[in-house]
Amino acid sequence: MTSSLLPTLPGHYYTDPALFAIEQDRVFATMWFSVVRGSDIAAPGAFRTVTVGRESVLVTRNRSGEARAFLNVCRHRGAQLCAADEGSVKRTFKCMYHAWAYDLDGTLVAAPNLVKMPDIDRVEYGLRRVHVREWLGYVWVCLAPGEPPSFEDEVQGACVERLGDLESVERYGIADLEVGRRIRYDVAANWKLIIENFMECYHCSTIHPELVHVLPEFAGGYAAQSYVGHGAEFGPDIQGFTVDGSPGVATIDSIAPDQDRRYFAVTIKPQVFINLVPDHVIIHRMFPLAADRTIVECDWLYLPSVIASGVDLSRSVELFDRVNRQDFEACEACQPGMASQAYASGGVLVPSEHHISAFHDWVRTRLA
Amino acid sequence: MTSSLLPTLPGHYYTDPALFAIEQDRVFATMWFSVVRGSDIAAPGAFRTVTVGRESVLVTRNRSGEARAFLNVCRHRGAQLCAADEGSVKRTFKCMYHAWAYDLDGTLVAAPNLVKMPDIDRVEYGLRRVHVREWLGYVWVCLAPGEPPSFEDEVQGACVERLGDLESVERYGIADLEVGRRIRYDVAANWKLIIENFMECYHCSTIHPELVHVLPEFAGGYAAQSYVGHGAEFGPDIQGFTVDGSPGVATIDSIAPDQDRRYFAVTIKPQVFINLVPDHVIIHRMFPLAADRTIVECDWLYLPSVIASGVDLSRSVELFDRVNRQDFEACEACQPGMASQAYASGGVLVPSEHHISAFHDWVRTRLA
Amino acid sequence: MTSSLLPTLPGHYYTDPALFAIEQDRVFATMWFSVVRGSDIAAPGAFRTVTVGRESVLVTRNRSGEARAFLNVCRHRGAQLCAADEGSVKRTFKCMYHAWAYDLDGTLVAAPNLVKMPDIDRVEYGLRRVHVREWLGYVWVCLAPGEPPSFEDEVQGACVERLGDLESVERYGIADLEVGRRIRYDVAANWKLIIENFMECYHCSTIHPELVHVLPEFAGGYAAQSYVGHGAEFGPDIQGFTVDGSPGVATIDSIAPDQDRRYFAVTIKPQVFINLVPDHVIIHRMFPLAADRTIVECDWLYLPSVIASGVDLSRSVELFDRVNRQDFEACEACQPGMASQAYASGGVLVPSEHHISAFHDWVRTRLA
Repeated sequence: MTSSLLPTLPGHYYTDPALFAIEQDRVFATMWFSVVRGSDIAAPGAFRTVTVGRESVLVTRNRSGEARAFLNVCRHRGAQLCAADEGSVKRTFKCMYHAWAYDLDGTLVAAPNLVKMPDIDRVEYGLRRVHVREWLGYVWVCLAPGEPPSFEDEVQGACVERLGDLESVERYGIADLEVGRRIRYDVAANWKLIIENFMECYHCSTIHPELVHVLPEFAGGYAAQSYVGHGAEFGPDIQGFTVDGSPGVATIDSIAPDQDRRYFAVTIKPQVFINLVPDHVIIHRMFPLAADRTIVECDWLYLPSVIASGVDLSRSVELFDRVNRQDFEACEACQPGMASQAYASGGVLVPSEHHISAFHDWVRTRLA
Repeated sequence: MTSSLLPTLPGHYYTDPALFAIEQDRVFATMWFSVVRGSDIAAPGAFRTVTVGRESVLVTRNRSGEARAFLNVCRHRGAQLCAADEGSVKRTFKCMYHAWAYDLDGTLVAAPNLVKMPDIDRVEYGLRRVHVREWLGYVWVCLAPGEPPSFEDEVQGACVERLGDLESVERYGIADLEVGRRIRYDVAANWKLIIENFMECYHCSTIHPELVHVLPEFAGGYAAQSYVGHGAEFGPDIQGFTVDGSPGVATIDSIAPDQDRRYFAVTIKPQVFINLVPDHVIIHRMFPLAADRTIVECDWLYLPSVIASGVDLSRSVELFDRVNRQDFEACEACQPGMASQAYASGGVLVPSEHHISAFHDWVRTRLA
Repeated sequence: MTSSLLPTLPGHYYTDPALFAIEQDRVFATMWFSVVRGSDIAAPGAFRTVTVGRESVLVTRNRSGEARAFLNVCRHRGAQLCAADEGSVKRTFKCMYHAWAYDLDGTLVAAPNLVKMPDIDRVEYGLRRVHVREWLGYVWVCLAPGEPPSFEDEVQGACVERLGDLESVERYGIADLEVGRRIRYDVAANWKLIIENFMECYHCSTIHPELVHVLPEFAGGYAAQSYVGHGAEFGPDIQGFTVDGSPGVATIDSIAPDQDRRYFAVTIKPQVFINLVPDHVIIHRMFPLAADRTIVECDWLYLPSVIASGVDLSRSVELFDRVNRQDFEACEACQPGMASQAYASGGVLVPSEHHISAFHDWVRTRLA
C-alpha cells in the first residue's frame, strides 16, 4: 500500500543563501530564461536591462530586427553600459566612463585612441553575447557559456508535455497578442514555493473563492496540471474568465473547439507560467533575487483588436490579479516556516499534490 | 596575593554571529525561556507568538486552562500558522493555506480530504509541541527536543541560590500580582552585556543617581547580588521605591519583615531578572534577536487592589524605567568596543565585579 | 611587440567582503592613514573619532600641543570612550559607564576605588595608543601593533616619487593653509576604483569638460601623474583653476616659477590624493567602509589671507567638486560590473592607463 503522504524538500532548500547561489549558477544562468516581451524592445536600439542570476543582461534589437542580449558590462574597465532599466540608443551603446562604443550586435566600433591600438580585436573585445531566442512574443536568453540546452526540448517541450502537443499552445497566437496589463509583484518568498503553489490546487478551495466560482472542479483540489492535456472547465453559469464570471472579451478564434470554455496551465521551468483561456493569455515570469525574494511579472495578453477597441479589461484582469495576491500571501506565509526545526526534514504532500514530487526530484538532480 | 583584576570574556563572544547561532541552540533553545505573562493568554484560545532562539513559538491555553506551546508551523507545507503577534481563536488554529486545522492541544483535527488519507496519524501530524511550565505567573517554554532540564533546579534553583530559599520569592505572591505597566526596550547590545550590567553595581554611582539615592549602599559599588540573601536597604529618609524616594503603594503583606524596606535582585539565566521591593515586583525578560540586538520586556507588577484603585504608579515605574534606560545606554556603549583590537582578549573585572567571572565560566562551559 | 592592452585586477578584488577584511588589516590598519586636519583638533583636549580599518580611533591633542591617538575603547569593560564624532574635554576622557578616566596622553588617572587596586599599572591599563605623525597640516595615524612603517619612505616618499623632490610639495606651505571648504562624498564604490580613476586621464575627455577646458592637454588622455615631475599646464586663455577658467585667488607666493599655471597630482597610498595649483591645494582622503562603499572627504585649502578676505571661492571650489562628482559617478558605474562574469578575469588597460598596473601589482603584493 502506498502512503497518501509523500515528503517535500527539506526547509533549507528554501532559505540557504549558499544553495540559492548554486541555483543561480545551475538553474537561472544555465537554462533558458524569459527576460522581456518582444514588444518591450520593439524597434532597433530599444533596450531593457534585466537581472538574470547574478548578471545584469542588456537585451536589445539589432538593425535587422533580431533580438540580441549581452552582459551589461564594458569590456574595458567594467562600467555598467546601461544604467537605466529601459531606453533606446540610435546606433551604439557608448560607455559613460571612457566612451568605448559597441554596435547593436555588440562589436566594439569606437574608443578614444582606438586606432593607435591595432592589436584590439573588435569582436573579441566586443560585448559578451548571451544566447537569445524569441518565442511566444517573448525574448528568452541563456547565459550558459558554451552551447545552450535545446530550446525545443526544454521550453517548447514543457508545453508538449503538459498539453500533449505544441499546436495546443501555438493556436493561441501568443506572439501576436498585445499586453493589456502588466503587474509586478514583489514576493517575500523563495521561487520554488511559487512554483509549487502554481502546480497544485489543494489550496484553491481555501484561498481562491473567485477562481473556484469560475472553475468549480478546482474545489476538488486537483489542478489543471495534474493530467496531460486537461483543461479545467468553466462552470455552467460562467460566461467568461472574469472575477465575477461575467462575459469576457472577444475569443481568440484560432483556438480549437475543445479549448473553449476551459483554462489550461503550463509550467516552464524554471520561471515561466502560461495560463490559457479562450479570450486571453496570462504569462507569469519570475525573477528570483534572493532565497527569500522573487519578483513576479505578470502579463495579461489580448487580441490587438480587443486592445484597440478600448473595452474595459478590469474584470478580466482582476480575476488572476486576485489569485496572484492570494497565492503570494500564502507563499510568504510559508517562507518563515521553512527555517523552523518543524520543517527541517520538510513537510508532506497529499495525493492531489503528489506530482510536485517530480519537481522536487528535478531540483535535487539539478543541484546535485 | 590575588590580583584585584580578573579577565572578562574576549570581545568576539559579544559580536560573532556564528557564536550567537550556537547560543541560540545551546542556550535559548535548550534552557527554560520565559515567553509571556500568563494573563497575556488569559482565556482558552488566546494566543501569542514569540521568537525563541530561531523559532516562532505559538503560546496558547487549552480548554482546561493549561498553557500550551507549539512551533508555529503547519505540518503540511510549512506555512506559519499564526502571523499575528497576538489574538485568539475559538477552537482550532486553522492554516490559511490549505485549511489544516489543529485543536488547542495541537492535534490535527481537520483538513480537506483528510478522511481519504487514513494513514495520517493526527497526533504525529499534530503541531510540534514544546515543553511548558507556568510559574510566578509567567509561561516558560523549553525547545529542547527530548527531556527538558529540571525546572526546579535551573529556574527555581536560581532563586534559591540567590535568596537562600524558595519561600523568599514565593512570599511576594507574584503569580497573583497584576501588570501595572509594561515597557519594551530595543537594545543595540549583546544579551550578555545586559546580564553583566545587571549583576554588578560598580557602575551605580556613575549612572544611577536616582537608584543610589534610594539605596545608598549602592554607592559603594557592591550589588545586592553579591551575597546570598542580601537585600539592599532603603536609605533612612526614603519612604518608598520611587524615583524621588516618595511613598510607594500598598505593601505586599505576605512578605517577611526582613524583606521590608529592601531591594532584592535575582538573575535567572539566560533571560530573566527579578527585582523585589515591598510594594511591587519588576521582571525583565530578554529576547535576543542578534549578537548585537536584544529586546527587553519589563513588567511592573502590583497587587490587584493597587491596580484596581487607580492610584498613580508613575513615580514607582519611573525609577526603574530610568535605571533601565541608563543601563541600556551603557550596554550600547560597550557593544562597538567589543569588536576592537583593544578588547580582543577582553577587559578586566574589579573586585566588586569578580562574581561576573562565574557567569563567564558558565557561558564558556555552555558553548564548549 | 608589446600588446597595447594590459590586464586589470580580477573583479572579485572589488567585491569580496573577505578580501576587503584582509585589506583592512594589511592596508588600512598597517599603513599611515590620514585621519583629521590638524586644525580639526586645534586646542588641547579637542578630539575627533574616526574609523580606521575596523577601529574607532580617538584623535586629540595633549597639553603640549602634540597630536595623540588611541583606540576609542575603555580598558575596563570596553565601553566606547567618546561616542561623538567630535568635541572637546578639559583634562580627561572619562568613561560614561564606570567613570574610569584617562588623561590626554592616555594614562589611567582615576576610577572609583582605584586606590584599593594597587596592582593596576596606570600606563599598562591606559588607553591603547596608536602611532601619530603630523605633516602637511594633517594628523596621520598607524594602527600597526609594533613599529610603524617609515613615514619618510611611505608618505613623503610618494611625493618625492611623483614630483621629484620633497620641496616641490613643501613649497605650497600646506600646513599653514586654511580649509576654505570641506565636502564629504558617500561613494558606492570600492576604494581601489577611486584610486584607479584618480590615476588616469583617459576618461577626462569623456566626463570632465570643465577640467579639460582648464587643462587642455588632458584631452589627450595622459594624466599629470604619468611622468615624474610633470604638471599639466593651464590653457593659454585660462586665468585660473576655476570652473570657468576665470581668475582664481591670490597665488601661494612660495611656489616655484615652474609650478605656476600648472596642476600637479600625487597619490599617497592607500587613501590620500594631493592636488596642487598655484592658488590652492585640494586634498582627498578616503575612508573605506565596505568593499562597495567609501567616504571621500575633500578639503579645499587656501592662504589664511584669502580666507580672511572673505573673497568668493565658489568658482574655485566648483571645478573640482564637479570633477569629483563626475569621477564618483563613473566609479559607481563600475562597481556592479566588478561582480559580472564578464569581469571575472578583469578588464584591460590602454596605453595611457598602463601605469595603473604598478598599483595592481602593489595591491597583489600587499594582500599576498
